[in-house]
Amino acid sequence: MAEYAQAATGPKTLPAKGFAVKAKDSGFSPFAFKRRDVGPKDVLIDVLYCGVCHSDIHTAWNEWPGTHYPCVPGHEVLGRVLKVGKEVTRFKQGDIAAVGCLVDSCGHCPSCEEGLEQFCENGYTLTYDSADKTLGGYTYGGYSNLITVTEHFVVKIPEKMNPAATAPLLCAGVTTFSPMRHWKVKKGSKVGIIGIGGLGHVGVKIAAALGAEVTAITTSPGKAADAKRLGAKDAIVSTDEAAMKANANRFDFLLSTIPQHHPLMPYTNLLRRDGTLVLVGALDGEPMQVWGPPLIGQRKAVAGSVIGGLKETQEMVDFCAANGITADIEMIDGKNLDAAYKRVKAKDVRYRFVIDLGKV
Amino acid sequence: MAEYAQAATGPKTLPAKGFAVKAKDSGFSPFAFKRRDVGPKDVLIDVLYCGVCHSDIHTAWNEWPGTHYPCVPGHEVLGRVLKVGKEVTRFKQGDIAAVGCLVDSCGHCPSCEEGLEQFCENGYTLTYDSADKTLGGYTYGGYSNLITVTEHFVVKIPEKMNPAATAPLLCAGVTTFSPMRHWKVKKGSKVGIIGIGGLGHVGVKIAAALGAEVTAITTSPGKAADAKRLGAKDAIVSTDEAAMKANANRFDFLLSTIPQHHPLMPYTNLLRRDGTLVLVGALDGEPMQVWGPPLIGQRKAVAGSVIGGLKETQEMVDFCAANGITADIEMIDGKNLDAAYKRVKAKDVRYRFVIDLGKV
Repeated sequence: MAEYAQAATGPKTLPAKGFAVKAKDSGFSPFAFKRRDVGPKDVLIDVLYCGVCHSDIHTAWNEWPGTHYPCVPGHEVLGRVLKVGKEVTRFKQGDIAAVGCLVDSCGHCPSCEEGLEQFCENGYTLTYDSADKTLGGYTYGGYSNLITVTEHFVVKIPEKMNPAATAPLLCAGVTTFSPMRHWKVKKGSKVGIIGIGGLGHVGVKIAAALGAEVTAITTSPGKAADAKRLGAKDAIVSTDEAAMKANANRFDFLLSTIPQHHPLMPYTNLLRRDGTLVLVGALDGEPMQVWGPPLIGQRKAVAGSVIGGLKETQEMVDFCAANGITADIEMIDGKNLDAAYKRVKAKDVRYRFVIDLGKV
Repeated sequence: MAEYAQAATGPKTLPAKGFAVKAKDSGFSPFAFKRRDVGPKDVLIDVLYCGVCHSDIHTAWNEWPGTHYPCVPGHEVLGRVLKVGKEVTRFKQGDIAAVGCLVDSCGHCPSCEEGLEQFCENGYTLTYDSADKTLGGYTYGGYSNLITVTEHFVVKIPEKMNPAATAPLLCAGVTTFSPMRHWKVKKGSKVGIIGIGGLGHVGVKIAAALGAEVTAITTSPGKAADAKRLGAKDAIVSTDEAAMKANANRFDFLLSTIPQHHPLMPYTNLLRRDGTLVLVGALDGEPMQVWGPPLIGQRKAVAGSVIGGLKETQEMVDFCAANGITADIEMIDGKNLDAAYKRVKAKDVRYRFVIDLGKV
């Protein structure tokens, strides 16, 4: 720590190290780079843990074309504050702090003024692989030992929370919490969470804590068997056509965490009148089919949602702290990243990999 | 009138006459049939006018497969009350009354108890070509001289409204009013009405009366030129790609009255963040494509809506009466039906045909 604290007073950049994919299909290797020095509004964080989100894989593997290499993914970043700029008011050295998917936005458009930085009308800066307005090039994410972020985009983490298991909330938590609040999931709501992975397993916990009657909807019989432990009332194996038919017209709200395009009709059939299917992962841009009659006949909707604003991200963390919610994690280090990515693709993680960056 | 009033005291059925398509592609011809006699809860209406809805064409021409012939369409039915059953409280002989798309529902399911008979969970009875629970066979609609309907499904029409121009509100009015109320269109809402036909032109008037800033979106330059007269602030010709691009991210609410499946992406692009595209006409069941990124990235939704409940239909009529809204109509008689249908298909009516049934 002393090394970085001292460096922060000197040059305009700080040496950082992490793990990068240096070209498509190259796999991960250690990577040295620069972080910006601490400006007046900045918080410098000694990264302890970073969750492995499916978006990281999409980007590192160029599955959402347009990745700029070398790529350091990671937007579920948690660590301890090393140093703060002189205008910073909410953090001090030693605090536990976290960073999610965004590190900047314009701050003055109507969306930013509403606290909805995820809809910034002048373009937000993503935590990784987004144009870096300070240093040029592209932003590097949380698979690293150090990150400098403007205070507004840093979230306070209560000391009582398990830090490693809290890191994934920064994407998986807010991505599931935000639409449940927006669409007013409440006590007694009949909620189905589709896809019980990193996002979905946290979504089940949050929905249950909101008082909803939660059903896990998964392709994995093993995850269905685990659903009650997560807080679900029951589970549906989505490949079981008879089960899907038996649950038609049941749900007020469905959250699809499936990380790619997928058939919608099997899920809109599960909605009851006035129900909404919200997509959060189908970002690859391949078309999906909807049919007018079920939407029209039962006033159903298909919608989307993306992460949440910073105010809501803090609310989500506080809600999770109050309700004892963290992610179920499996810890890895930077040497295991390629194997971990393959296991995520194979749906073989219960439920989130977290990288231990404390010793990098 | 005396003839029917007398007949109603006698047999269990009453002789009626109207216009039917007797087989697919046969065209319309005069048709004699029976109405049920007035039961204790029934209202017998001497039909004066009936609007020609695009649904009538879909059904008469078997475009939504499953039509039962002979088919008497018509669900924008307005007339004068001839006789009421002894338990009827809201109507008396001589009142102007109207019937929309529904003539019955179970009355006791949660949807019916909420006044949302259009979502009856035990199956509603449509005004035409729906199983007739009283007489057997299939219901006959409003292209006829007489109709017997249970009081709950009859709407009161203020005497001051032009009766011929009011008839179309029973479908076109409530189909556009209901989603605008459900999605909370209000003063200043930026609303686009897509498809300026029978539904759309009434939708423009209702949206304007709700205080919205209304844009007509149409394939017809001639209708675009007429949009301001209807109450729109402006119009977009949807085949003009530059205009469509210039209006991206503009609308809070879009109502698509297009009477069949159609591309959705050009319209979801017009929605601003948190906007909803509501379909009311795409009932043919052909798939339509949606893409995750625009829905997810801007929390947009694609939804559907169908007519409205009876309480809301009465509210719509009262709202239209208070705001001087009726349909722009062209009057025809039963002999012109085949030609009129062809003109609807050719988008050659400003904006609703209404059949004069007073002399049938």
